[in-house]
Amino acid sequence: MTKTDIAKRVHDHTWKLDPIIRSLLDTDFYKLLMLQMIWGLYPKVDATFTLINRTTSVRLSDEISEGELREQLDHARSLRMSKKEMIWLAGNTFYGSKQIFQPDFLAWLAEFQLPEYELDRRDGQFELRFHGRWRETSMWEIPALAIINELRSRSAMKTLGPFTLDVLYARAKARTWSKVERLRKLPDLRISDFGTRRRHSFLWQRWCVEALKEGLGEALTGTSNVKLAMDTDLEALGTNAHELPMVLAAMAKDNEGLLAAPYQVLQDWNRYYGGNLLIVLPDTFGTASFLRGAPDWVADWTGFRPDSAPPIEGGEKIIEWWKDRGRDPKEKLLIFSDGLDVDTIEKSYHHFHGRVRMAFGWGTNLTNDFEGCSPIELGGLTPISIVCKVSDANGRPAVKLSDNPEKATGQPQEISRYIGIFGSEDRVSKPLRV
Amino acid sequence: MTKTDIAKRVHDHTWKLDPIIRSLLDTDFYKLLMLQMIWGLYPKVDATFTLINRTTSVRLSDEISEGELREQLDHARSLRMSKKEMIWLAGNTFYGSKQIFQPDFLAWLAEFQLPEYELDRRDGQFELRFHGRWRETSMWEIPALAIINELRSRSAMKTLGPFTLDVLYARAKARTWSKVERLRKLPDLRISDFGTRRRHSFLWQRWCVEALKEGLGEALTGTSNVKLAMDTDLEALGTNAHELPMVLAAMAKDNEGLLAAPYQVLQDWNRYYGGNLLIVLPDTFGTASFLRGAPDWVADWTGFRPDSAPPIEGGEKIIEWWKDRGRDPKEKLLIFSDGLDVDTIEKSYHHFHGRVRMAFGWGTNLTNDFEGCSPIELGGLTPISIVCKVSDANGRPAVKLSDNPEKATGQPQEISRYIGIFGSEDRVSKPLRV
Repeated sequence: MTKTDIAKRVHDHTWKLDPIIRSLLDTDFYKLLMLQMIWGLYPKVDATFTLINRTTSVRLSDEISEGELREQLDHARSLRMSKKEMIWLAGNTFYGSKQIFQPDFLAWLAEFQLPEYELDRRDGQFELRFHGRWRETSMWEIPALAIINELRSRSAMKTLGPFTLDVLYARAKARTWSKVERLRKLPDLRISDFGTRRRHSFLWQRWCVEALKEGLGEALTGTSNVKLAMDTDLEALGTNAHELPMVLAAMAKDNEGLLAAPYQVLQDWNRYYGGNLLIVLPDTFGTASFLRGAPDWVADWTGFRPDSAPPIEGGEKIIEWWKDRGRDPKEKLLIFSDGLDVDTIEKSYHHFHGRVRMAFGWGTNLTNDFEGCSPIELGGLTPISIVCKVSDANGRPAVKLSDNPEKATGQPQEISRYIGIFGSEDRVSKPLRV
Repeated sequence: MTKTDIAKRVHDHTWKLDPIIRSLLDTDFYKLLMLQMIWGLYPKVDATFTLINRTTSVRLSDEISEGELREQLDHARSLRMSKKEMIWLAGNTFYGSKQIFQPDFLAWLAEFQLPEYELDRRDGQFELRFHGRWRETSMWEIPALAIINELRSRSAMKTLGPFTLDVLYARAKARTWSKVERLRKLPDLRISDFGTRRRHSFLWQRWCVEALKEGLGEALTGTSNVKLAMDTDLEALGTNAHELPMVLAAMAKDNEGLLAAPYQVLQDWNRYYGGNLLIVLPDTFGTASFLRGAPDWVADWTGFRPDSAPPIEGGEKIIEWWKDRGRDPKEKLLIFSDGLDVDTIEKSYHHFHGRVRMAFGWGTNLTNDFEGCSPIELGGLTPISIVCKVSDANGRPAVKLSDNPEKATGQPQEISRYIGIFGSEDRVSKPLRV
């Protein structure tokens, strides 16, 4: 007897949408941590988030249909937290702490809806913006990026037949498993999935996380994706992002306030979180300036995430800085998370092994490494360097300098003003792959 | 809504058997061609087929449960030709000819059932024998081998979880596709699947054939597997095997009859088939002896399948022989089919390209190349050198000498007797992988 599930077949034929975002928890955990703080301390602040495709050679609005993009964004706006999700957020232990989220915040989150979006097309690109309260617009960053990236891979694969797709995924699985086998040789490795935003697709990210869980065992410390953490019983991981100092800096009344913004963020953070959540992200306006101006208590924090600096040089400078302040780097944590792949992970691991605690947040090269996997050449499967960044706060322009000038965002004259204040020491241009 | 097909799940739980042989057509096409000739010319001849595992280091009866083996053999015995299969055999064009099978033969085949088997265990091996009429026992060769090989791979994979299996097949698919991409670079390639007998599994063979069809297009000339040919609309390919001269030689009354047996086979064959089916398999008692004694009309046949000789040396000798007899090798066909993989195919292709027509029958390294694919080391996935050969005919011992002494079968004193008659010129020992 041929088994066809007629009901399923009919349902598939009548699909209006194959949703990319299935849940409001299909986002990075740090968004929820930051959201609670923004909700508590900056409830009236407005912040605009803007999509930026740094890979300008890829004309997104040629590759992706505006109609499909709107459908996916609208679908994401239709999502609400489910009862099960709320119970899990309230009852789960995060970073070893129970009740990390306050009841008032959770009550507010239970009603949360993604705010409206503005979408235009210009010069082959989408102009996608989210205006409104920071505590609402912030939540668009990850779903907006995931939607764009998955629509792009879906579009690239539209011409492939079932067999070609089978080979494509077989190759991608084989490649991922080879990476797992290499990483398995690093005995003290601690690594987690940070690949939500630029993933090939939700289902592929889930496969990759399952591969790491199966292959790395305890070395996999968790995933940044809240939904996948819940579904697969992994730790939800992540701390804080550039948007915090960017918004505070944008709102600063004078140069002094601007220089103080990165440390104000840490004080704010410390009102909500402790322990392993005390991770400094030092590069928003350049790590050299950050370290030079940092109060001594910053050295008491658990660790640093030297995001845009080259891992080895960046890590060495932070270690030096800890030593200068009399702290033992062996008790400190460095989290690497910028454009990692197995080569850079191995190199950093061997370089720092035994000198400092380390963790790796593996992103795009984990969840979107399909180059050469398609039996037919498909440019659309090569990941692009795309971000969704705060562009203004309370009407004032926001800036990120970064340790890599290629990653700077903001209006050029504002970038110059910030460089005048923070300096540009140690900023090294590196081409961006993702 | 979670979609579980409850009926399917219940059915799966109550499976008595996951059958390896799904149809009497799940066999090599040459068995049907030979069967018609045996049925027509040698209906009363008895022939015993015996399983021979040349890889004695692999203890089959330790790896495979005797109970499961019996269940699969019994299941194969329960099969009959279906109406659809009979209609297809009668209506399809094979090698460009309609009605290649006579109505009387088809009427007999419609009732065909695999005969009984004898199964014992000794020294870690199965003693599996099929006694009876040649026209019945002959049909066990392929299903018996396919059953043993698939039970062996099933047994090897029993400990693997769903994820590990997923990676295993992903790697095998990626590897097969890389082979397809290499073969695609040979513009005049003509290749077919000959991998039924030592396949990893039926479903995997089907995937491989579909991969070749998708990737090679016209370069894939067909498959030896009759069921797959029918299901995928490919040509069913194959001609004749060693069992024909082996049985005729065993029945020979004297040395003269023995020497004449290989040519008698060709005359018999020619009563049934013509055109591209006129392929000489010269190595049963050594190619050198065969060529030396061959009547001139043998050079009029379409081509040779130099099975056990090294492809280049073996091919060169046949080309030389054609030239000596005034035939143009460019109009002749060489079919290579012994332990091929991409390296040997490329090498033979480049060596003979433009000098002779060529075709490749790709067997075990197509349908059972899993070495290194499992995330966990599994010896049981390495193919073994296993055959199912005529051991006697009408009670007299049967012998195969082959061009490779490692492939000789028969009682030692009989092998010596045959060597005394046919000689052992050009026989070169090559280790057997499969």
